[in-house]
This record gives sequence, C-alpha cells and structure tokens, in this order.
Amino acid sequence: MAKELTSKSENYSQWYNDLVAKADLAENSAVRGCMVIKPYGYAIWEKMQAELDRMFKETGHVNAYFPLFIPKSFFSKEADHVEGFAKECAVVTHYRLKNDPNGDGVVVDEDAKLEEELIVRPTSETIIWNTYKNWIQSYRDLPIMCNQWANVVRWEMRTRMFLRTAEFLWQEGHTAHATKQEALVETEKMINVYGDFAENFMAVPVIKGAKSENERFAGALETYTIEALMQDGKALQSGTSHFLGQNFAKAFDVQFANKEGKLDYVWATSWGVSTRLMGALIMAHSDDKGLVLPPKLAPIQVVIVPIYRKDEQLAQITEKVDVIIAKLKALGISVKYDDDDNRKPGWKFAEYELKGVPVRLGIGPRDIENGTVEVARRDTLTKSVESLENIDQYIANLLEEIQANIFNKAKDFRSEMTTSVDTYDEFKEVIKNKGGFVLAHWDGTVETEIRIKDETKATIRCIPFDVEEEEGTCIVTGKPSNKRALFALAY
Amino acid sequence: MAKELTSKSENYSQWYNDLVAKADLAENSAVRGCMVIKPYGYAIWEKMQAELDRMFKETGHVNAYFPLFIPKSFFSKEADHVEGFAKECAVVTHYRLKNDPNGDGVVVDEDAKLEEELIVRPTSETIIWNTYKNWIQSYRDLPIMCNQWANVVRWEMRTRMFLRTAEFLWQEGHTAHATKQEALVETEKMINVYGDFAENFMAVPVIKGAKSENERFAGALETYTIEALMQDGKALQSGTSHFLGQNFAKAFDVQFANKEGKLDYVWATSWGVSTRLMGALIMAHSDDKGLVLPPKLAPIQVVIVPIYRKDEQLAQITEKVDVIIAKLKALGISVKYDDDDNRKPGWKFAEYELKGVPVRLGIGPRDIENGTVEVARRDTLTKSVESLENIDQYIANLLEEIQANIFNKAKDFRSEMTTSVDTYDEFKEVIKNKGGFVLAHWDGTVETEIRIKDETKATIRCIPFDVEEEEGTCIVTGKPSNKRALFALAY
Repeated sequence: MAKELTSKSENYSQWYNDLVAKADLAENSAVRGCMVIKPYGYAIWEKMQAELDRMFKETGHVNAYFPLFIPKSFFSKEADHVEGFAKECAVVTHYRLKNDPNGDGVVVDEDAKLEEELIVRPTSETIIWNTYKNWIQSYRDLPIMCNQWANVVRWEMRTRMFLRTAEFLWQEGHTAHATKQEALVETEKMINVYGDFAENFMAVPVIKGAKSENERFAGALETYTIEALMQDGKALQSGTSHFLGQNFAKAFDVQFANKEGKLDYVWATSWGVSTRLMGALIMAHSDDKGLVLPPKLAPIQVVIVPIYRKDEQLAQITEKVDVIIAKLKALGISVKYDDDDNRKPGWKFAEYELKGVPVRLGIGPRDIENGTVEVARRDTLTKSVESLENIDQYIANLLEEIQANIFNKAKDFRSEMTTSVDTYDEFKEVIKNKGGFVLAHWDGTVETEIRIKDETKATIRCIPFDVEEEEGTCIVTGKPSNKRALFALAY
Repeated sequence: MAKELTSKSENYSQWYNDLVAKADLAENSAVRGCMVIKPYGYAIWEKMQAELDRMFKETGHVNAYFPLFIPKSFFSKEADHVEGFAKECAVVTHYRLKNDPNGDGVVVDEDAKLEEELIVRPTSETIIWNTYKNWIQSYRDLPIMCNQWANVVRWEMRTRMFLRTAEFLWQEGHTAHATKQEALVETEKMINVYGDFAENFMAVPVIKGAKSENERFAGALETYTIEALMQDGKALQSGTSHFLGQNFAKAFDVQFANKEGKLDYVWATSWGVSTRLMGALIMAHSDDKGLVLPPKLAPIQVVIVPIYRKDEQLAQITEKVDVIIAKLKALGISVKYDDDDNRKPGWKFAEYELKGVPVRLGIGPRDIENGTVEVARRDTLTKSVESLENIDQYIANLLEEIQANIFNKAKDFRSEMTTSVDTYDEFKEVIKNKGGFVLAHWDGTVETEIRIKDETKATIRCIPFDVEEEEGTCIVTGKPSNKRALFALAY
C-alpha cells in the first residue's frame, strides 16, 4: 500500500514526516524552509484558531493587524531583543524588478534600493510598541489588549514541517498596562488560557512553569511556558507568555500619565502560539496507522462508509444514512458520507484511519435488516455493533469519551515518563536511555544549566508552577536548591 | 470638538482620511505604505471575513496556505503575468543581519546573500500552480477548490488607507478544473458570490460585468468584476474573478490524464477581494458625522447609553438594561452598554455616530417611569420613543429595516448617477461635471479605450452582464457597437 507509514518504533522521525505527507497535512514548497499547509492540515489549524480566538476574546482581547515589515533600526532599540532575534531573518533591500537587459526574465532593479532595509517580522514587539506610543497618553488609554493572527519569518537553518519552518503562522498578543501587577496577572492569565486549550481541546497534557533566565524570550523579564511530552520522550514547548516589564516601553519611549498625573513607562506582555501546535497535536497522539485527532479539533468527527454490492442496496443505505446525518448535524457533529463509487470500503477505512477521523460508521445490507450500524473508534481501533435507534446520542457520548481517553492516555504516558532523580549519574542515565521529563534539583545558575546541556543535550524546560518546595542539593554542584526544575531533551 | 470631520462636500478626500483616522479604523505605520488596522477597523474586517469564508465553503471551497515568498524566476514563467505584476514588489535578497562592526546597531550580512532573490507575493498564482503540479495527475484529482486568506505586497507609489496600500490583506481563490466549461462556471459563480456579499452584507449595490481586454488581470483570458459607486461619483472595483484558461497550467506544466487517458492541460480560475472592501464600505454610506455601518457588518449593532445624575438612578437604569441586553443577545444581536462614568452622554452619542453603530438606545429616569426607551437610528439620524415591551423584536426589525434602507439609498444614488450618453461631447461633459457611471457605445478596440482614458481619465469599468443588446455607434469612432460599456472615473 502506497499510504503505509514507517513505524513509529522503527524510525520516529521518518514516521512523523510520512504522517505529515500522507495524511495531507503539509508539504515542502519551492521556497527553502517554507511549507504549504494543505487543506486537511489547514482545516485542523482553523479549528484551533477558532477556539483560541474565542478564548482570547472571552478574556478581553481584540484583534488588530500590524505591518509585515519592520525597519531594521527598530531591532537595535531593545538591546536583548536584537541579540535574540534580529540575526536570522528575511531582509528586503529593493522594491522593484526590471526586465533583464539580456532578455532572460527579470532582475532586481538596483535603482530601487531601499534607504533602510526592511525585515520581515520574526515577531512584532518593536513595530507594535512603536505604534502603541501614539495610542497611549494617559492611564485612561490603558490597558491595551491586542492580538494579531499573522505569518512570521525566522530564517531557520534546519527546518521540520510545523515544528520549525522559516515561515509559520501564529498569533501574537501584545498588551500594555498601567501597573506591573496587572501585566503579571495578564502574563499568567494567558499561559493558563494556553494550558486550558492544550489540555481541553488538543487533549495534550502540559506542564506550566517559568523558563530559566537563559531560556527566556529576548527582552522578557519572565517567560512562562507550557511544555508537552511527545511519544518519543522529547519535550515540545507549545506556547509562551512573556512579562516584558518596561523594556519595550523604554526602548520606544512609551510613557503615560498615571492617576496622580505623573509620567511612567507602560508595562508590557506578549504571548503566542503557532502552527507548531500542529506538530504537538500530531506527535502526541498518533500511531502507526496515522493521525489520532481529538474530536474537538477534528475537521470531520464522523465518517460514514456504505458497504454494498448493488445499486439498490446503496439506495437503501443512503436513505438510512441521510437520517443519521441529519440527527448528528442537529447535535453539532460534523459528518461526512463517503459514497464514492471508485474506492472500496477497505481503502476508505485505511484512509480515514490515516486522517484520524475519530468515529467511523460502516453500514451494509445486514445492518439495514437489523437496524444496526458498525461503530469503529479511531483511538482504540475497536469496533462494536450498535442499534440505529439513538445512534446520535450514542455518538455524541462516544466523542466525549474519545476526547477524554486520548487525553488520559497521553497523561498516563507522561506520568510513566516523568522521573525524579537525585544524582547527576542517574540524570544522565534517564536522559540517555528512558527519555521523558526529569525532575532534578539545580542550583539556579546559568553555568550549571549550560554544563548540563553541553554534557547531556537536556535543557531546563521550566520550573513548574505546581512543583512543591523541597530542600535538596543541585545534582551537579551540590549547592542548595529548594525546588526541582523540569529537564528534557526537546524539539 | 477634536473628533469633528472635514465635511464631505468640502473635501471628500480629506473627509475620508479624517473618518478612517477618527473612527479608529486604521493609521499609517512607520513603514511607508503599510497601514496598521486598528481593533475597530479589524473587527469590521473580521465580520466580512466570516461571511465570505462561510460563502466560499458553502460553494465547495476549502482553505489552505501557501508560502509568502515566491522565487523570482517563477514570475517569468507566464509572459503576461510578469508584465503585469513582477515589477513593483518587495525583494528579499539576504537572510541574515549582523552586528555593525562600528558598533551602531545591525547591518545586512553580505555573506548571507540568497542565490535567487525571493519576492514577497503580490498574488500567488505562480507558487500555487507550481504546487498544484504535484497534486494533479488524473481527472480524479480535479477539481481543486482552494482559497487562501493572506497578506500580499505591491509596492504602490501612491497609497491610500484601505484603497491602495503596499501591504494589504485579502483572500485569493485558486481553482483547477478538467474542462474549460467548468472553469468558466466557477469564474462566474464566484463573481456572483462577491456580488451577493457586496449587496446583501455591505449594502453596496454593484454592477457585475466583464473587464475589457486592456483592464484584465495579467495572465487572464477573462476578468469579471463587481463595480461599486462611491458618493463622490467615482467607481471602485470591489472584487474580481478571473478565467485563466490554461495559461498557468502551461507555464508550470500541469497536465492531467482525462477520462479517455489523454494528457491535457488543466483549466484555472482565480478570484479575490481585499481590505479594499473596507474602503468601499466606508465611502458608500458614511456622512459628515462619521461611519454608517450596515447592521450585518457592524461589530456593535446596538449601543445603550444611560442618562442619569445620581448613582441610584444608574442602578435603576442598569437593572432595566440588563434585561434588554439579555433579550437582544438571545436574538443574536450584538450590544454594548456604555456606562463609563468619565464621559457625558453627548460625547458618547457623537462617538457612536462616528463609529457607525446602527442603533443607539438612550435611557433615563423618565424612561424608567414610563417604561420607554429612546431609539436613535444612525442611518437616518432620527429618534423615537418606544415601549420597553417587545423592544427586542422592535430592534431586530429595525436592524433589518436599516440594512435595507442603507442599500436602497445607495442604489437610488447610483440610479441618479448613472447616465446613458450617445456622443463623446456629452460623455466628456458628464464625466467632468456630474461624475458617476456612464453607459456609452464603444467600438471594442484598445485604441479607443486608451484615447478616452487619456482625454477624460475615465476607464471602462466593465461590460455589464445585464446590459441589453442594442445597435449603436461608438461615441468616439462612430464604428458599430451592439452593447454599451460602463465608464467612470475610478479609484
């Protein structure tokens, strides 16, 4: 079969690439590092966007749109930011092409050189704070709670579909506040929104926590993260929320008159998730047969496949199916009836397993006689025969059960794959042979963090919010530590 | 008052600029020709997007995403296309910055020069057809019905907020078909979708028709358009749908095996509308007090302003208002209660008139006594006192009435401003003094079209689909013509 995937255990990386390609999620384009998101992949992203957008609006945010291009000089205004971002990016230097004098297509018109180069946004703090400057005079203008859905470009050398691409789609929230406290509350609120989304929609359990200083966003005073565990035991940073302090306000001179009439710099946050979430979704749940999608994000929740030999059988089946479809749609369940005559049922079964459709109904002449339907679950790959009576409610319940089961399975896996260690030897052993999350005491210094990374490739994913205070000693230096940090190999 | 607009009759162009700025729709950014779409403007665009997206999906389309960048060489592959598009565009030549050796910020790293320059997409036919090549082998792979919501860049020298900006947001549909007939049907279907959207949601009457050869999209065999009339008598092209024949399939060598097993080139269409629609929406309906939004696209359909002196009055009012809000929301009507204590009712009235909120309710102590509310319509600027009983149904009906009234007003204006002329003198006179649409016989040649444009600045907006066949003679050359073309000065 052309559609067969490399098995996950054999070659995880190849399995992922096969899956992305064969489930029609995305493919490489003619432009290095830039992907084409195919309709089925994009339909999943649209479901993600719709839920996130609703959650952002419910938490008081509005959408806006800021320019794709950023003047080069803007990047130099925030010292840490330029170190972290401005290097690997797409630079626009000219604004016109002309016919090649040699008659060979078009060439850059050297007369149309920009005075100042423009950078294709890798993130928009600089251009947005330059804009906010004009929006903010007094505390009455605050808070500003904007989000932007946009494409961004970071010239990555090694790219991987969804996980790391030169161009990717994301949302970036940028808020402006009158007080430090309010900005901190916002930073935390948004990491909670991301955590809620990951767990309740993507069915991906995440650990929320603070990044170590070394892993913070360029220009942030604090970066909160949600960290998910993939089935190969590697961590995937899935969303971040940054407390930016007054750094960008100072860099772009954004001051406001507070209630007492005194001028102060504005407090900032920014937060984002991207099409990288697609990578997390794929890698957290899928198997050797293909995608396993949580029902809440599946573009097709139920597929119905007729099984028949003669046209009159199909007519009988279709009559029943039309009733089922109407009932399911009334419950808000998305359903596809695949009566394509060119493909056999077996081919269709494999295809919808590959595509991760949560529930498949098979219905043949014997089902018509018996008033039944065969119900196949994508998550467990189990089948049962169910009565057509109340099938709509049965499926509605089943979809909820599948959503919960996928989440619980991922959570159980994470529990198994989370290890507390007390010595560096044990740490190295677990990282090397078992993988997963490792909780270990660390002395809080960048030096130790870097040494561990150099020696094991493991990085501090976060200092989890919910980790208990506990007296201990750093596994490397033996210095005192009162909390375990979360380490892992990571994407 | 700081928010007052230049009057429309005094200076239409300044009125438009004032309105865009003061209604918080958009503003210029630090990057030449690129605008910031502010939250209120973006909220209108989101309403437009949601309706259009629904209409596209109902007509069988799916969304996908293609790269922002296009290799320079792609533009040379379709001869007409390169002439029409590849010239004024943003060119990416480098992929890295480095610290300035002189310590002054960052500079382009000359070692990081791209082998082939990348163009920021001005439109995506080339990269998409290069992709479709891999998706299409047989007639079974057709049709492909993709749409993309994206940003595009055209390096315009003279920019105007929404109407013509260097970067703008749009959607571009790109479909691939097995037969010419099917592609033609699609081209027409989509111009009808645009016409339906313009008239039934934007309340902007449009004339549908075919572009003259000279005004066609670069690379198209046929371009259909919807043309709207603005209040200054100028036309605004508001959406186009192109029949591309086999031009792009040939340029990118996209062949398919038809049912008979023979290879043939694929037939194409493309179609798009952009944030330019925001310009049409603003200019078609608004007045000297600000925006006039059709209820179906208004982010806030109803605003409620309490009128009170004492806090206990506000409490009483709010109690009643809470009931009204609940009732309106139950009918799917969006409502805002503005009980901000810092602003006076008069200021709020002006503000929501500026923002084009279709219905404003004012409610004070006397209304509480009488069980009434004051209802103000934005479109007619009239007020009436209505009973609180059944106020929800009253408002639901009123919103429909306003939607219809705005459309009819624009349609009446267009009727007044559409003139049939039979001589070139008359044509020139009408274009110069009256403006609007002018229907005139034309001999069908590019020469005559260009002469008219050179002498009067009027262009052929389209040959309307519904214009009657009628024997006549070209107003310029006297040659025979069997249909009138639609001329106008245009944005």
